[in-house]
Amino acid sequence: MPDVLFHVDLNKPMDEQEIPGHNRWHPDIPAVISVNPGTEFRVECKDWTDGQIKNNNDPSDVRNVNLNRVHVLSGPIWINGTEPGDLLVVDILDIGPFPNSEWGFNGIFARENGGGFLTEHYPEAAKSIWDFHGIYATSRHIPGVKFAGIPHTGLIGTAPSQTLLDKWNKREKELVSKDPDRVPGLANLPTPDSAVLGSLKGAEFDRVAREAARTIPPREHGGNCDIKNLSKGSRIYFPVFVEGAKLSLGDLHFSQGDGEITFCGAIEMAGWVDLHVDVIKGGMAKYNIIDNPVFKPGPVEPQYSDYLVFEGISVDETTGEQHYLDAHIAYRRACLNAIEYLKIMGFTGEQAYMLLGTAPVEGRISSIVDVPNACCTIWIPTAIFDRDILPR
Amino acid sequence: MPDVLFHVDLNKPMDEQEIPGHNRWHPDIPAVISVNPGTEFRVECKDWTDGQIKNNNDPSDVRNVNLNRVHVLSGPIWINGTEPGDLLVVDILDIGPFPNSEWGFNGIFARENGGGFLTEHYPEAAKSIWDFHGIYATSRHIPGVKFAGIPHTGLIGTAPSQTLLDKWNKREKELVSKDPDRVPGLANLPTPDSAVLGSLKGAEFDRVAREAARTIPPREHGGNCDIKNLSKGSRIYFPVFVEGAKLSLGDLHFSQGDGEITFCGAIEMAGWVDLHVDVIKGGMAKYNIIDNPVFKPGPVEPQYSDYLVFEGISVDETTGEQHYLDAHIAYRRACLNAIEYLKIMGFTGEQAYMLLGTAPVEGRISSIVDVPNACCTIWIPTAIFDRDILPR
Amino acid sequence: MPDVLFHVDLNKPMDEQEIPGHNRWHPDIPAVISVNPGTEFRVECKDWTDGQIKNNNDPSDVRNVNLNRVHVLSGPIWINGTEPGDLLVVDILDIGPFPNSEWGFNGIFARENGGGFLTEHYPEAAKSIWDFHGIYATSRHIPGVKFAGIPHTGLIGTAPSQTLLDKWNKREKELVSKDPDRVPGLANLPTPDSAVLGSLKGAEFDRVAREAARTIPPREHGGNCDIKNLSKGSRIYFPVFVEGAKLSLGDLHFSQGDGEITFCGAIEMAGWVDLHVDVIKGGMAKYNIIDNPVFKPGPVEPQYSDYLVFEGISVDETTGEQHYLDAHIAYRRACLNAIEYLKIMGFTGEQAYMLLGTAPVEGRISSIVDVPNACCTIWIPTAIFDRDILPR
Amino acid sequence: MPDVLFHVDLNKPMDEQEIPGHNRWHPDIPAVISVNPGTEFRVECKDWTDGQIKNNNDPSDVRNVNLNRVHVLSGPIWINGTEPGDLLVVDILDIGPFPNSEWGFNGIFARENGGGFLTEHYPEAAKSIWDFHGIYATSRHIPGVKFAGIPHTGLIGTAPSQTLLDKWNKREKELVSKDPDRVPGLANLPTPDSAVLGSLKGAEFDRVAREAARTIPPREHGGNCDIKNLSKGSRIYFPVFVEGAKLSLGDLHFSQGDGEITFCGAIEMAGWVDLHVDVIKGGMAKYNIIDNPVFKPGPVEPQYSDYLVFEGISVDETTGEQHYLDAHIAYRRACLNAIEYLKIMGFTGEQAYMLLGTAPVEGRISSIVDVPNACCTIWIPTAIFDRDILPR
Repeated sequence: MPDVLFHVDLNKPMDEQEIPGHNRWHPDIPAVISVNPGTEFRVECKDWTDGQIKNNNDPSDVRNVNLNRVHVLSGPIWINGTEPGDLLVVDILDIGPFPNSEWGFNGIFARENGGGFLTEHYPEAAKSIWDFHGIYATSRHIPGVKFAGIPHTGLIGTAPSQTLLDKWNKREKELVSKDPDRVPGLANLPTPDSAVLGSLKGAEFDRVAREAARTIPPREHGGNCDIKNLSKGSRIYFPVFVEGAKLSLGDLHFSQGDGEITFCGAIEMAGWVDLHVDVIKGGMAKYNIIDNPVFKPGPVEPQYSDYLVFEGISVDETTGEQHYLDAHIAYRRACLNAIEYLKIMGFTGEQAYMLLGTAPVEGRISSIVDVPNACCTIWIPTAIFDRDILPR
Repeated sequence: MPDVLFHVDLNKPMDEQEIPGHNRWHPDIPAVISVNPGTEFRVECKDWTDGQIKNNNDPSDVRNVNLNRVHVLSGPIWINGTEPGDLLVVDILDIGPFPNSEWGFNGIFARENGGGFLTEHYPEAAKSIWDFHGIYATSRHIPGVKFAGIPHTGLIGTAPSQTLLDKWNKREKELVSKDPDRVPGLANLPTPDSAVLGSLKGAEFDRVAREAARTIPPREHGGNCDIKNLSKGSRIYFPVFVEGAKLSLGDLHFSQGDGEITFCGAIEMAGWVDLHVDVIKGGMAKYNIIDNPVFKPGPVEPQYSDYLVFEGISVDETTGEQHYLDAHIAYRRACLNAIEYLKIMGFTGEQAYMLLGTAPVEGRISSIVDVPNACCTIWIPTAIFDRDILPR
Repeated sequence: MPDVLFHVDLNKPMDEQEIPGHNRWHPDIPAVISVNPGTEFRVECKDWTDGQIKNNNDPSDVRNVNLNRVHVLSGPIWINGTEPGDLLVVDILDIGPFPNSEWGFNGIFARENGGGFLTEHYPEAAKSIWDFHGIYATSRHIPGVKFAGIPHTGLIGTAPSQTLLDKWNKREKELVSKDPDRVPGLANLPTPDSAVLGSLKGAEFDRVAREAARTIPPREHGGNCDIKNLSKGSRIYFPVFVEGAKLSLGDLHFSQGDGEITFCGAIEMAGWVDLHVDVIKGGMAKYNIIDNPVFKPGPVEPQYSDYLVFEGISVDETTGEQHYLDAHIAYRRACLNAIEYLKIMGFTGEQAYMLLGTAPVEGRISSIVDVPNACCTIWIPTAIFDRDILPR
Repeated sequence: MPDVLFHVDLNKPMDEQEIPGHNRWHPDIPAVISVNPGTEFRVECKDWTDGQIKNNNDPSDVRNVNLNRVHVLSGPIWINGTEPGDLLVVDILDIGPFPNSEWGFNGIFARENGGGFLTEHYPEAAKSIWDFHGIYATSRHIPGVKFAGIPHTGLIGTAPSQTLLDKWNKREKELVSKDPDRVPGLANLPTPDSAVLGSLKGAEFDRVAREAARTIPPREHGGNCDIKNLSKGSRIYFPVFVEGAKLSLGDLHFSQGDGEITFCGAIEMAGWVDLHVDVIKGGMAKYNIIDNPVFKPGPVEPQYSDYLVFEGISVDETTGEQHYLDAHIAYRRACLNAIEYLKIMGFTGEQAYMLLGTAPVEGRISSIVDVPNACCTIWIPTAIFDRDILPR
């Protein structure tokens, strides 16, 4: 086992950890670890909510979650010799839950507090607890289903430069200003409330807390991409925007369906990640990897070969309005079609919704030019069910 | 070989075929074949443009294409005993090009005439011709690339009822009215120009031609889904809206990347499809398959295990504007990121664009709830290149 | 479609074809085609028995088959510029049955006439006819099973040099001499009976017929390897022993299980193969490919992910005698274990035996050093059955 | 993490553990744990040699290994309510090395002390040490190679009944008697030397030690099958021969090639296994699973799609003698062909031999009826090399 460079104590909030992490993005959050290129090391992570969700049957913790607290991250990690313009090459060698904490949660956020992809249809909070059995997950809240997890880092990224941060804040502020009272909000702007900023204190804490970007969206540096395939064995090429790269990570998932549609979220867990880091000097320009990370998935993703696939198009399901090549709506329709089908197979709508958020389902943009409809598809592996779910 | 129930002569336009097909959707286009459930049969198809694109190096045919002529379809096929409310079960047993026509085309439509997913970046017409070598395709216009095709029916669907047709026309008209002069247009409304309607003639032709929906978008009945996985061995469950189901198909592709991003299109070909049809009586209500087909992919898709993956988020690449969970923009950014990378590997932008439209690349909605950014990914199999394309 | 360089007429025996093929290996059988490296071309093939087995329910043709007639091959093909010591690079671009002959046969040879892997247990002749439905095969003689085929060339190889041929004849003669009266025989020695030798005539025919090796076993030049993975898209590197390489092929299979255990055989069919050939000059020494071909499988083999696996060890099932690391016996025991299990699932022993010979089952040497037992395994894809075959 | 029911201390030999395990098979070795069907639990295991091989560069420990000491097993585990005739259903939920012992060994046994599959060619002892990097393994002794492991239980089985044990001893004694002085021996007969028999003591120890079968071969109860696919997520159905089933396991491998050809062995490691057990009452007769276990592989085996495949036939490589359908020789020839090729790619023969024993290569019985040659194939994933190894 590689050295653990970042420890967490599950009984303490992130700001009271021996080495506190952070839950905002800002170039001035000090690095807490430094490593050389070529190093293997372990990082421990709390679940993204900092322990707000409990292993019980009561969804009130999901309903009342403090989203200003998310995502608590481990880092920043300084990679020696790294400069802006480099590519940081990160290998996800392995990921797992803590031995004494082999469970995770998924939930549906209430519309008033976070929402989710189908919040107009499922506006109430709900929760499913998942138990891990080696590579498999089951939930007492969704009987009849068992699948191999695809453990991954929901959130991993380098620190933004001040310039990049300013760009984020500007564009997101402009978006919010279009409909500032929308529920759920169009974006989450910087707020000092519940900010955790590592070792920063006093005026510097206050300044950074006011400026620092929230961790919810993925951005140019990676961040909360929630790509289920950043799993064991994958290699990620990150653009570097600040000296030392300042890598941070968290939001570990035992499994997730493409889209992470319930927002709360995948099968969320606390756990550890083994990493190897390296650097390609000047790699951003050399390879034109400027705007987003590039990655190579690992070789041990769960292998299913039998899928049932649901399609959706970009027509609003409530109003019947035709939208122009809107893949968001098309994927929503595909998910809703799948849920209606799974109801026939004995699941409640909420169960089916949470299943699509947790199981290794694939979400594809199948066509995106056939004006005016985009066609998206959701792929459900049939082997995860303890019954035959095909139409006969 | 099963009986050929629908023949085409590649030297004649669709309206001059012995049994003419059609290029519009309308319940009153008469069926030209009838089969019993349980039958296997072969259908021949022209390429979607009715032969407008030639096997040469000149893209002027792509630039000047008559899009009112598309998609020329084979059918409608009446399936005996089928009624509205049933599910039509279609097995795609096999697909292939004609023995004397083993080539296909891909192109970029000019912005003024069709456009494409990246039309703001690549507004000029371009063309690539692909040669088939058994299961493989290569193009003299994109050297250094060879891949196994994933032949599929780009377009297959049942006929709409009059009610459903009226709904389509209404919603698409409303969309167009929002920006009627947009180039490319927001949708393609009914037009008698270049309509082909099987055996209809005279006043009936005129009435139907005025009402009939264009074939460009996928809709509730399936249609032009351009799902690359409707390949050999797949089974599709279609909702049935009219007596006899009236199945039609065309737009055969030798291969396509998810999204069919160049619009013109995949590797487009003329060829044949072997089908088996069956019926689940009352299946729409029994299985809640109401709004779109459901399918089960076949077992012989090309197997690649090594991918390089590019990410994109929903920030406009030109204006820097932040959009709200817009998977269309996120996928466009992912495609553009891939193209910039492929330029480093020695391809022109146009070549890379056409490659993403033709090779078996996967497009995924990786996250769709992390406000305000959607994260989409495009997966490129590394084995299709004759060189190592990984960053080193 | 590439040019057809070798035609067959299914209504004529191989020695009456316009261009007659051959059914023996000898360097002096004249080439009938010549091609340049880089050429793509089509070769048509009769089934391996030269049409002796009919599409009916009567196994007497299997029982009375003339095995001196097998395998009728198409070729030899001269590849211009090829010399001993080169590697001949053969791409299997595509394979298929003839459009008007979409069926194949499998059978169990009687112990007295050919036998098979389990001939002590199933000594009587039996036959199953398989119908092709695009990529799928079913048999009226084994209901409840359907699978995607893995079409391949059971037999493909270069011509031996006279030195190599002499070596073959010597070693096989020595083997037979150990038990000359054994039934089935230990090997099949040269015999002029039913020999087909292309255009050879008179004394030259007689000489070659006396010397030429039978086609039944695989040898250093490839030959009757019956490797199910020499399917669409695979590339084979053959050692070249004579000028021109003199490639021949035949024994097409629509599908086969590893081992081809029934001997008669896989799903045997007549059909066509599209080939591309190239040469690596001096490749045998350059790559140490001296004794047997090397190959790279293609990317479109049927993908199954769920298997039920049966083990066997090298203890004789009848006598209980312990053998030393005998993988032959271990695989036989694995097959017998699978058959006993499939009997519980409703198949007869003969049906199960023929199923293992035809479906894409895998046979593995799992351990070969744990004295005194080898452990072999047979992998059966569960998705080929129309019922759940797992123990519950 | 499930409860650890069997602990090991890596610093103590197996007979000095708090709960001692065993290294022989006998029905009278007392169970040390009892669990109910439906239980999940963890078992810790020492490496198969009981710690004789060290993490260094000196192969003398391999040369001088005491093979009477192997395999040290954890168990027996009593499953409550289990009786002869039942099937014991064992799920391998997860497997891993100990956190402070993330390395393993492979070696070539000297011909005089154990030998191996290619002992005539590589008679000297050799050793390679492998380091684990999350899911990957590399060896400082075989540079240029890195692969995802396929961790598995090399040895797992139920206890034999006295009747079954007597049968084993009888047949193996008869085998040895055919050539009692052979080096390496034809089988390993019972010996009290270095026997570890759990808590047995005194006269009972002596009696059992004289009768107990060695653990080296796989047999009817499973045992040392060395099937690389008994990996994470697999389910095994074991015949039960004694009350309580008495399950034992050990010989953990981080990775192995089919055949485990070096005998010492795979990548051998100490570690832990998480198990779930259940029972199908009367399952042996109900499912005809009498003679060997049956299993269903798990869904997270390493996925490689690109292989280079070497063939071998049953002609002795030294004498040129033709053998009759001998899959042992055919696989040996395939391995030797692969090794000769890998020498061209820059490996020594010993390195290539150890690579085939450790990497996830597949060994297949491709044809077994084409008298007189069997054809076996060895499949090497090309992605495990840091260079292109294809012939060009």
